[in-house]
Amino acid sequence: MEARQEKNENAVGEAIAVLTQRFGDRVSTAQAMREQHGHTTTYHKNLPPDAVVFAHSTEEVAEIVRVCATRDVPIIPFGAGSSLEGQLNAPFGGISIDLSQMDKILSVNAEDLDCTVQAGVTRVELNEYLRDTGLFFPIDPGANASIGGMASTRASGTNAVRYGTMREVVMGVTVVMADGRIVRTARRAKKSSAGYDLTRLMVGSEGTLGIMTEITLKLFGIPEVIAAAVCSFDTLEGACDATIMTIQTGIPVARIELLDEVMVRGSNAYSHLDLAEKPTLFLEFHGSEASVKEQSERFAEIASEFGGSDFDWATRAEDRTKLWTARHDAFWAAKQMAPGKEGVASDVCVPISRLAECVMETKADIDASGLIGPIVGHVGDGNFHASLMVDPGDKEETAKAQGILDRMVERALAMDGTCTGEHGIGQGKIKFLDAEHGPGVDVMKAIKVALDPQNIFNPGKIFPV
Amino acid sequence: MEARQEKNENAVGEAIAVLTQRFGDRVSTAQAMREQHGHTTTYHKNLPPDAVVFAHSTEEVAEIVRVCATRDVPIIPFGAGSSLEGQLNAPFGGISIDLSQMDKILSVNAEDLDCTVQAGVTRVELNEYLRDTGLFFPIDPGANASIGGMASTRASGTNAVRYGTMREVVMGVTVVMADGRIVRTARRAKKSSAGYDLTRLMVGSEGTLGIMTEITLKLFGIPEVIAAAVCSFDTLEGACDATIMTIQTGIPVARIELLDEVMVRGSNAYSHLDLAEKPTLFLEFHGSEASVKEQSERFAEIASEFGGSDFDWATRAEDRTKLWTARHDAFWAAKQMAPGKEGVASDVCVPISRLAECVMETKADIDASGLIGPIVGHVGDGNFHASLMVDPGDKEETAKAQGILDRMVERALAMDGTCTGEHGIGQGKIKFLDAEHGPGVDVMKAIKVALDPQNIFNPGKIFPV
Repeated sequence: MEARQEKNENAVGEAIAVLTQRFGDRVSTAQAMREQHGHTTTYHKNLPPDAVVFAHSTEEVAEIVRVCATRDVPIIPFGAGSSLEGQLNAPFGGISIDLSQMDKILSVNAEDLDCTVQAGVTRVELNEYLRDTGLFFPIDPGANASIGGMASTRASGTNAVRYGTMREVVMGVTVVMADGRIVRTARRAKKSSAGYDLTRLMVGSEGTLGIMTEITLKLFGIPEVIAAAVCSFDTLEGACDATIMTIQTGIPVARIELLDEVMVRGSNAYSHLDLAEKPTLFLEFHGSEASVKEQSERFAEIASEFGGSDFDWATRAEDRTKLWTARHDAFWAAKQMAPGKEGVASDVCVPISRLAECVMETKADIDASGLIGPIVGHVGDGNFHASLMVDPGDKEETAKAQGILDRMVERALAMDGTCTGEHGIGQGKIKFLDAEHGPGVDVMKAIKVALDPQNIFNPGKIFPV
Repeated sequence: MEARQEKNENAVGEAIAVLTQRFGDRVSTAQAMREQHGHTTTYHKNLPPDAVVFAHSTEEVAEIVRVCATRDVPIIPFGAGSSLEGQLNAPFGGISIDLSQMDKILSVNAEDLDCTVQAGVTRVELNEYLRDTGLFFPIDPGANASIGGMASTRASGTNAVRYGTMREVVMGVTVVMADGRIVRTARRAKKSSAGYDLTRLMVGSEGTLGIMTEITLKLFGIPEVIAAAVCSFDTLEGACDATIMTIQTGIPVARIELLDEVMVRGSNAYSHLDLAEKPTLFLEFHGSEASVKEQSERFAEIASEFGGSDFDWATRAEDRTKLWTARHDAFWAAKQMAPGKEGVASDVCVPISRLAECVMETKADIDASGLIGPIVGHVGDGNFHASLMVDPGDKEETAKAQGILDRMVERALAMDGTCTGEHGIGQGKIKFLDAEHGPGVDVMKAIKVALDPQNIFNPGKIFPV
């Protein structure tokens, strides 16, 4: 693939001029707009694009891609701006295509349990739209991300343990390729053996292979009974071991989320909870009345075996909402614990049998550092996060945090896990791709070159150039 | 990609000589051996490879690939020989790599609910090995296929409605690329956002992108209670509508299989059953005692609404085995109904809401033809098969059968379905790939060229040359 070194100012200027003529005030080069579109939520240095274009349709995206391709100008797709690994930065300049105004829900096929949406629809908007259908869309990263962005990073969240990740729930996508061609990757059949799985190739490709503009998603029936509960543990290891046993015995929990005692302290403050400051699991059970009863009884037995408290049930819908909102706000709660500091965050995912070991060793590493660094995780999947609070101007502190997170990744890889369960590679995890995939990285690069020979799609992400 | 026209006899001869020197009597050029390795189960004309090599390890496969790549000789991977669309034929000659002696189960991680096997292990062998672990592997195409072959065609079967297809249960593969490099596509974490999804790119690629030699699979706990039942219906439409309603209301059936009255007659004769010769569903419910009771009661309500009979329960393990063996033997039962004839078989998959319509129109088409052509299907997924019995020497009859199956595919595509739910493209469905994927086919070809520029891997499958 074309290795990018520096940008061609003339080409970029020309592309902006052509786009402005075509799209008028839907093109912006204002500094604030550009910086917002390089936004990374976390500690990555802001590298703004040269301009932002708001697209309204797949055809417009194709048109913008052709304008940029002709001039070899990079394109960075933008949804809600909530990615964590620098996916939206523009290290080689270029045009940010903002898809947030592509916010139409194109169809809901309730009888097939699927829907098709434009890429800019957010997960919350989709669920609000579905409210009267008896269906819901389960994938819920912390932020109110766009469906396109979630597909791009292969996002998951708290419900993934039961309902899968974007890998499982995306049935097909409409994607604009590097030459402006428009491809629909799959039809709406539940399964197919017809050719290569382009859908899953696009999901998780972080805008480097094509721009997803429309996404067909699986939906699920809202369960008859939903019961949420909080269960605190004497030890972090106990909470992890109870999770492992829950998964190994096949209890179909809908959610099983870990907050270590640091995170509980932060969430108590930020989200006005009054939980015991102990390692804690937030749980949710979905099913019929009999099934939820059975699941929760079986979990209770396991919890008591590992030092768990009695449940604190959240039976009313508003109490459940408060609980899960607090969980989704964990990142901001962590930030509030260290005013003026930035979060250096990372996630890993390991086989479930190694969860306790990986969490405990990471916890010990954080404790030894003296940094504030809560651990929180979608532990039913073996996936957890650490957010270390640092002063970005303090090089020593930043290096210390980075060291902890690097060791966390190395630990996960040594346990046959992955360097990221749900955040993606972006810029932040590029250094681990070789360690995780070895010669598989060359296969990925060969695909990248084949589908985007000019390297105009999100250069400097997943791969260094 | 290199378009193959005819084979280079000298190059093939040289490759066979080199391989024979290296692998001795594990190389065979005997006519019977070659013909068996072009075996297609169905009506496709046998096009045998020039030689067969039995590989014993990933490294040996890599060595064979390098010998062939140097000489531009085609390679066709072979597992159990049970594919249905001509996947094993050698239209341009070449070497069949037989993986059936790579039959080791390399590891079972019961605590992570996964295992890693060599590609030649069959689904039955795997389940026999797992017998004392409390775990099972659910994917079950009719034949006792090899795991490698099942991954290659993205196979599924009767349990897919609950447990997914090979797309969902393959966690990672070790694959030999066209230049002999060995790549492991993923680690054992349940989810990952680290780079392109090479696992799912390889699954379903029918030996055209690489040769899968080791496969890591998800396993599942054997349910506490398993209950199988037979329910016959007054009409085919009633059986389909009951299935649709079962899926739409979210009953987590483990199996829901349709046999039309023609298939029931065939299975009664072949498998010594005494079922009423009516459209029939074979069902299985998995779960706790309470859950199975709840599921079966809910299904019974639906069935009675659509003209279903009372259940005939198969509670004893041996009765269940008899039932599912009969279902797996449907292909052979169909053949027995028309002695001396061959089955021209095809499968399609449609969104569940269109199932009844697609089945009924296909049934009417078959009935009008006067051919024996039972319909059988994994209807919970919207997936069904028709097998038309023809005399291969009778051109008119064969053309009639092909016309019915072509119209079945066109019907499925018009309903936003796929030309194959689980058999793959092979040679038989190449003509439908463009109709299904349009410009997506060019994307597939670009990937094929990038990963196999010489087109040595299974040429003439998925794509015409």
